[in-house]
Amino acid sequence: MKSKSSIKAAVLSASVAAGMLSSCNTGSKEGGGADTDSTNAALECIMTRTSVREYQNRPVGRDTVEILLRAAMAAPTAVNKQPWTFVVVDEREVLDSLTAYLPYARMLAHAPLAIVTCGDMTRAIEGDAREMWVQDVSAATENLLLAAHAVGLGAVWTGVYPIDERVEGVRKALALPDNLVPLAVVPVGYPAKDSEPKDKWDAGKVMFNRQ
Amino acid sequence: MKSKSSIKAAVLSASVAAGMLSSCNTGSKEGGGADTDSTNAALECIMTRTSVREYQNRPVGRDTVEILLRAAMAAPTAVNKQPWTFVVVDEREVLDSLTAYLPYARMLAHAPLAIVTCGDMTRAIEGDAREMWVQDVSAATENLLLAAHAVGLGAVWTGVYPIDERVEGVRKALALPDNLVPLAVVPVGYPAKDSEPKDKWDAGKVMFNRQ
Repeated sequence: MKSKSSIKAAVLSASVAAGMLSSCNTGSKEGGGADTDSTNAALECIMTRTSVREYQNRPVGRDTVEILLRAAMAAPTAVNKQPWTFVVVDEREVLDSLTAYLPYARMLAHAPLAIVTCGDMTRAIEGDAREMWVQDVSAATENLLLAAHAVGLGAVWTGVYPIDERVEGVRKALALPDNLVPLAVVPVGYPAKDSEPKDKWDAGKVMFNRQ
Repeated sequence: MKSKSSIKAAVLSASVAAGMLSSCNTGSKEGGGADTDSTNAALECIMTRTSVREYQNRPVGRDTVEILLRAAMAAPTAVNKQPWTFVVVDEREVLDSLTAYLPYARMLAHAPLAIVTCGDMTRAIEGDAREMWVQDVSAATENLLLAAHAVGLGAVWTGVYPIDERVEGVRKALALPDNLVPLAVVPVGYPAKDSEPKDKWDAGKVMFNRQ
């Protein structure tokens, strides 16, 4: 496993190798500011995000939660359906209730916050593309994890859908309306310790053109 | 629809409101460098990514492609299965073949590159969590889109799975082995023009604690 520093170095050297002197898209209209630093900061956030399961005993403010939710809702969504809803759980008894229904997600017992990402079936595409809501909510969940990492929080994606027992457990714990299907429970908090990101790069998982 | 500048301003003001003087996680061990600039660059990349469907007539180098793939493989993955494979398509005739099978993805005819994100069924979880590969590959696809945006490329997620006709079309165009299920085709290129990100924030899609 690579250290953070070596992953950072790999990202930076890859950036240089690619001759990426172009600015992050977002900067070109701003008249400077965004440059290779912005590019590298964004790539580094992606490359160094990792699952964080232990948190400081410190609350996460609702203003910060809003940043995470704005990032989640910036995800791409098929046919612009935005078939998602996010449940912010920051009351101790509700977090404990989730833990009771999701024994595998024990870190909830010590997390100050969890965000439950849900599909909203009233907004899902009709017909044979209906299950695309899963992809939309997954992209939103990844944005949420990245935003958490960017602001100095740690989080972990704990899977709920499509395991019926877990879906029903979360529905009961939160008394969700029938149109919402919980996809993931994401405990969030300020990290109790440093976590090393896994290096999952595998050139063997890349193919080119026609096989 | 907000302009890029106003979205940027919203992100920045939200950051300040949250008192986010903490550094991006990635920087704390590096002894400086990463700070609110890094936090904001990462958030801005997430907030300003948008679908790009028109590209310059300019190839994307394989070194740059590797950066996108490294970002994709940094996604979270249930039980660390990494049930994914990425097919890099940069030969004109193969891109055209994809277009023939995916008439809705006409931008492929003018894209220098597409990356097809696939689930690898030999790596999927067994049993009732099997479909979690969709969430893993979706998170990887979102990372790929964000990395493309970070390096100045534009991309768009065109949905394939679970629509049987599209899945079979991509399988035929690429002669994929049976264990691979294409989830999305992502055309990539240098943007031909500026694109405004959609502002999808909707406070009505947020709920708190128990309903």
